[in-house]
Amino acid sequence: MSVERSNAVEILAVPGIPLVRKDDDLVVLIREGLARGGIVPRGGDVFALAQKVVSKAEGRMVELASVKPSTEAIELAEKVQKDPRLVELILSESVRVVRARPGLLIVEHRLGFVMANAGIDQSNVTSPGGPQQVLLLPVDPDGSAAKLKSRLSQQFGVPVAVIINDSFGRAWRRGTCGVAIGAAGLPSLMDLRGSPDLFGRELQVSITGYADEIAAAASLVMGQGAEGQPVVVVRGLTWCGSEKGASELVRPAAEDMFR
Amino acid sequence: MSVERSNAVEILAVPGIPLVRKDDDLVVLIREGLARGGIVPRGGDVFALAQKVVSKAEGRMVELASVKPSTEAIELAEKVQKDPRLVELILSESVRVVRARPGLLIVEHRLGFVMANAGIDQSNVTSPGGPQQVLLLPVDPDGSAAKLKSRLSQQFGVPVAVIINDSFGRAWRRGTCGVAIGAAGLPSLMDLRGSPDLFGRELQVSITGYADEIAAAASLVMGQGAEGQPVVVVRGLTWCGSEKGASELVRPAAEDMFR
Repeated sequence: MSVERSNAVEILAVPGIPLVRKDDDLVVLIREGLARGGIVPRGGDVFALAQKVVSKAEGRMVELASVKPSTEAIELAEKVQKDPRLVELILSESVRVVRARPGLLIVEHRLGFVMANAGIDQSNVTSPGGPQQVLLLPVDPDGSAAKLKSRLSQQFGVPVAVIINDSFGRAWRRGTCGVAIGAAGLPSLMDLRGSPDLFGRELQVSITGYADEIAAAASLVMGQGAEGQPVVVVRGLTWCGSEKGASELVRPAAEDMFR
Repeated sequence: MSVERSNAVEILAVPGIPLVRKDDDLVVLIREGLARGGIVPRGGDVFALAQKVVSKAEGRMVELASVKPSTEAIELAEKVQKDPRLVELILSESVRVVRARPGLLIVEHRLGFVMANAGIDQSNVTSPGGPQQVLLLPVDPDGSAAKLKSRLSQQFGVPVAVIINDSFGRAWRRGTCGVAIGAAGLPSLMDLRGSPDLFGRELQVSITGYADEIAAAASLVMGQGAEGQPVVVVRGLTWCGSEKGASELVRPAAEDMFR
């Protein structure tokens, strides 16, 4: 297999995406934003969307006041010093607790992600004066990405790819990094095994977390704080291999040595 | 603290960088490559360099035939099914073994990186017909980055930043991802704690592994296989905070829950 590397990649913010509400049509918001920015979609463009706007459009907000914590959640909440209702939601989104200590709760999300708080977000969710809300991950981020990819490709008449971005903390390294929790239209892992190196020797470690590298790149423009630039176009990439969702980036627990 | 997010970032390969040899002057090779590509450096450009070319220029190649493995290396080599001379070098570059199993040796490098094989590389190092060589990480990647930053900034008359890139495997996720093992001229971690979110609530997890996100972005153009595009310019980023080396991305063992 041989890959022509890109010579130049652009990362462009789609300007003026408004605050997203339940049932908003992200395709319409993106189309309007692109027009506003004078950005004409091209085949092979990757649309990176912040998880937050996808979750909001899908109505994944939960009012904290509506949650009744279990005994397990109350006990764990005391240990990690978090709101028991939040902990209840974290547990309901998870298959196991990986690490718990004051201020920190790392779980294995039902989708396999090892992450803090099951990805439940408390910032930029509650409206001023409104009831306190939190935001869960999309139910099926790869499915959401596939639908968006299909609709965006149809809308613009060119094949585009979609990534849904989140920011994860990491073992061994400080600081969060953008990762892909959903993807469609590109290989999430790029397998270069079997490509000879420049001297004809077979390459060693050479499966790249391609969609994660794109997500990290998109995060540079997206930021992670506010929702000002939640949609970003990554342009000029070239890839090989079959299109697969971001679930293939999840290392199965049985293969993993660090949980 | 408030950060103006970039609206557009470009990632440009510096064309035609030749195979690098010991004592080559990377600044000269970069200057010639930029001229070849018609790329005029701007203030704030980030030069991302593949670890491999920095190591080669610094003469970090070792002939395997010159290495005498210790008893410890011979025993560990049998367990992980690797060349005992390579294992000897890995151990000499490391402060501890984190995980060892057939085909896999994860260590804590003397610089704190938790990584496979202490970052020692066997591909694209040995010349055809020449003695088998491997390549160690630079002795002091932050120091190398600082020197390159200073010389590149002087050469071009504008302040630029430098990142030295490697590809690391990760806990919990499949595929490698570009990371910064050295950095100068930018904050390696970007701390947004204290920035209010859109509704005035204090942001939660908000220390970004900024230099790692730039490294991942650069990897999209650099590739990790051949050495065709080992130098990449990342243009259009904006940052805040004090300039610090990539060593601040290393989570100290005492703070880490996963080794």
